[in-house]
Amino acid sequence: MKEIQVGLIGFGTVGSGTAQVLYEQAERIRKRTGLSIVLRRVVDIGVDTLPAHFHNVILSKDVNDIFSDPDIDIVVELIGGTTLAKTFVLQAIEHGKHVVTANKALLSEHGREIFETAAANGVEVGFEASVGGGIPLIKSLKEGLVANKIMSIMGIMNGTANYILSQMTDHGTPFAEILKDAQDKGFAEADPTYDVEGIDTAHKLVILMTMAYGMNIRLEDVAIEGISRIEPIDINFAREFGYRIKLLAISRNYGDHVEARVHPTMVPETHMLASINGAYNGVQFTGDMVEDVLLYGLGAGKMPTGSAVVADIVDIARNISRGCINRVPALSYLPEHIKPRRITPMAELRCPYYFRISTLDNPGVLSTISGILGKHDISIESVIQKGRRQQGTVPIVMRTYEAGEANVQKALAEIDGLETSTDKTVMIRILTDHEE
Amino acid sequence: MKEIQVGLIGFGTVGSGTAQVLYEQAERIRKRTGLSIVLRRVVDIGVDTLPAHFHNVILSKDVNDIFSDPDIDIVVELIGGTTLAKTFVLQAIEHGKHVVTANKALLSEHGREIFETAAANGVEVGFEASVGGGIPLIKSLKEGLVANKIMSIMGIMNGTANYILSQMTDHGTPFAEILKDAQDKGFAEADPTYDVEGIDTAHKLVILMTMAYGMNIRLEDVAIEGISRIEPIDINFAREFGYRIKLLAISRNYGDHVEARVHPTMVPETHMLASINGAYNGVQFTGDMVEDVLLYGLGAGKMPTGSAVVADIVDIARNISRGCINRVPALSYLPEHIKPRRITPMAELRCPYYFRISTLDNPGVLSTISGILGKHDISIESVIQKGRRQQGTVPIVMRTYEAGEANVQKALAEIDGLETSTDKTVMIRILTDHEE
Repeated sequence: MKEIQVGLIGFGTVGSGTAQVLYEQAERIRKRTGLSIVLRRVVDIGVDTLPAHFHNVILSKDVNDIFSDPDIDIVVELIGGTTLAKTFVLQAIEHGKHVVTANKALLSEHGREIFETAAANGVEVGFEASVGGGIPLIKSLKEGLVANKIMSIMGIMNGTANYILSQMTDHGTPFAEILKDAQDKGFAEADPTYDVEGIDTAHKLVILMTMAYGMNIRLEDVAIEGISRIEPIDINFAREFGYRIKLLAISRNYGDHVEARVHPTMVPETHMLASINGAYNGVQFTGDMVEDVLLYGLGAGKMPTGSAVVADIVDIARNISRGCINRVPALSYLPEHIKPRRITPMAELRCPYYFRISTLDNPGVLSTISGILGKHDISIESVIQKGRRQQGTVPIVMRTYEAGEANVQKALAEIDGLETSTDKTVMIRILTDHEE
Repeated sequence: MKEIQVGLIGFGTVGSGTAQVLYEQAERIRKRTGLSIVLRRVVDIGVDTLPAHFHNVILSKDVNDIFSDPDIDIVVELIGGTTLAKTFVLQAIEHGKHVVTANKALLSEHGREIFETAAANGVEVGFEASVGGGIPLIKSLKEGLVANKIMSIMGIMNGTANYILSQMTDHGTPFAEILKDAQDKGFAEADPTYDVEGIDTAHKLVILMTMAYGMNIRLEDVAIEGISRIEPIDINFAREFGYRIKLLAISRNYGDHVEARVHPTMVPETHMLASINGAYNGVQFTGDMVEDVLLYGLGAGKMPTGSAVVADIVDIARNISRGCINRVPALSYLPEHIKPRRITPMAELRCPYYFRISTLDNPGVLSTISGILGKHDISIESVIQKGRRQQGTVPIVMRTYEAGEANVQKALAEIDGLETSTDKTVMIRILTDHEE
C-alpha cells in the first residue's frame, strides 16, 4: 500500500487535533483511499514530548528537519500568525512539499505570493480549514458549485462573535460581560479584537471571494465594522421588528463590481442565517444555477478543524498517488483567469437601516431629526420611542426604507452633532428579501 | 484545449436544465478546468427539435447513436424510472462510457449491479444530483468528511412533502387541499405516493447510508411512514410543545447495527432542521470528528439539479483529462470494504412519542388509556385534552417520556381496540436532544 508521509509544524490546539484525527481515522482513510497516510514528524519549539500513541512520530524543534526529510510529501502549517508561518510555508513549497494550512490571516494577506510560488514549484496548497472550521465550504465552492456564477456570499464566519450575539439575544447580558465570561472559559482570545471587530471574518471573506469570483482582493478592500457597540436594547428592538442581529460577511457580485463588507446585520428571523446560534458558522452561496446553498457547522475547535485539515491531506494524497497534482486549481479558476475587480464603495450601498439615536428628551427633537433624515432622502418606515429615560436621555429607534449609505452617513453626522444628542447613533444595516 | 463530449438521454425538465447549464456555463467551466465540455448528442423519443442555440447538438431517438459514438466520453441518464434507465445505464457502461445520473430510484434499487459493472469496465458513475438536488451533499460526504466516522444522518430530502408540511404549518390548511393545489400548480406529481409516503426520501437515505457507512442496504431495509395522516391539529399541538413536524430520514450508526427510518418527526424548533421550509432540503451529517454539519438548498428543480449533474460531469472530465479515473471510489469506500450491516429493527427504537388519541368523551376514558400505557412502561410527560368535541369525539393529546417502540405499538393497538376509540391513534416520534 502506498504511503504518504506528513510533517506537522505546530502542535497546539488544531495541530494536536490534526494529529489525533490522522491517528484515529487511519484505518478508515485506508479503506476509503487505499493509501496509508502517516504522520512522520512534528516540529514545535514549545513541545518536549508527544502523547504515547505517537511513538513512531519524530518530534523536533527545527522546521528544517521536515523540509530536508525527502520522505515527507505534505507539510501542515498550524502555527498561525503571518510572519514565521509565511516563511515556513514558502520554504516548504520551495522544498517541493505540498502544503496544508488553516491560516486565514496568512492566506488573506499573502495568498497571492504563496499560490504563485506553489504554482511555480508544482505543489498544492490546501486550505479547507481556513474558513468555517470543519464545514466543507471550500471544496463545495470549487467543485460542487463549479457550474455556477456565484451571485452572492453571505455568512456567519466567526464563532466567538456569534456566540456573544447569541448570548446577548438569549439572556440580555451586555457585550462586555459575555466577552469576559467567554475569555474566562477559554473560548475567546485574550485579545478578542480580530473576532469581535470583524477582522477574522474579513480574512475569511477575502478567501471565499477570491475563489467564488476568480479575483484578486486584499483585506484592505473589505469594509469592516465589529459588534462591540451593539447593546442588548438593540437586540430587543431587532426582535420587535422581526430580526436577529448577526455579524455577517456579505459580498454581492454585480459583474463589473463586487461588494466586500463585514458588519452587524439585522437578518429576518425567517432566514436560515438567523437560526445559526452559538459557536456555529454558516455560509450561504447563491449561484445563478443552483440558487441558495447554505453550509453549516462548527467554525472552529480542535477536532472539527482537524477534520478539515485531514480532508485536504487526503485530497492531496489521492492526487500524489494518481499523478494528478493540481487537478482542481487552488483558487478555483486557472491563474490566468484571476483578475482584479472593482470593489463597490460602501457609499454606493443601498439598504434599509436601523438607527438608535440617543438624545435629550426635549420638545421638537423628533421633528429636527426627521427633518435631517428627510433632507437626505431617508424615509422612516417606523419609529419607536419608548425606552425608559436614562439620565435625561431617551433612545429614539427607527427603521428606514431603503436608503443610500452616503446619505445615511451624512445624516447621522448631522444628528450626532446636534446639541441634544448624547451619544453616537448606533446604526445597523438590515438584510432585505431581495438580498437573500 | 482538450474537449470532453457528452451524450444526454432524456430532454425533460432536468435533461433540458442540464443542457442549459452546460451551454450557459461553458466559458466559466473552461476558465476553471482548462477543458471544453461539449454536449454532442441528445436522445429523447418525445423531442423533435432542440432550442436554436443547441444547433451543434445532434438530436435522435435511438440511444445506440450515443453508445456507438466513439467521441462521447460521458453519458448522462435523465429519463428516470428503473427499467429502461437501468438498461441504458448498463449499456453505456458496457460501451466504456462514464455515466452521470440523477436517478435515486435506480441507484437505490439496482445500485450494486450498476457500480459493480462500472468497476469491471473501469468507468465512473456520478450521482450527486440523485440526493438533495443542487446541494453538494455527496461530494461533501465522500471527500469533505472523509476523515470521519459518520455517526448519524438526518435529513429533509423531499421538497414536496416539506412544502406540504410547511403550508399546513403556516396556513392550517388540510393535507389533501395543499396537495391538490400543489398538483394544480405542477410541482407535485399526479401520483404523489413516492413523495408523500416517504419512498422517495427512503431511496435517498439508502444512497447516503451506502456511502456514509460503507455498507450494502436495500430499500426494503428502510422503515417508511408518510405524512398523509398528519392533520393541522397535530401541527398546532406540536407547536405548543415547541416542535415542528418534518418528514425526516434518520439513520444512526451504532457500529454493529444502524438505523434506517423515514417518518414524520417532531423536531425541536431550535434545531436547524426545524427552520427548513417550503421546497428546500437539508441534511445533517454528524461525524465523530467534525460533529454536526448541515447542508441546505433546493432539493429539486431544473437548474439546481442541472447544476449538480454538471458538477459530476466536470469531476469526471477532470479525471479523464488527468488520467485518474475513479480517483475517489464511487461509494466512498473501496469495494472490498463495503459490507452488509444489521439494520436495527424499529421495535428496538427508543424515543419520546406524541399521541393523538380519538375517543368518545366518556368518564374514565383517560384513566383506561393511562392504565394501558403504564402497563407497557410508557410514562406520560404531558397531556392536553381541550380540542372541541366533534361528533362526540374528543382528541386526547399526549407527549411521553422516552419509551420503547415495541411497547408503543402494543399499547396503541390496545387503545385503538377500545370501544370508546373512534379512530386510529396518530403517533409521531419526537427527536430529542441526544438525537441531534
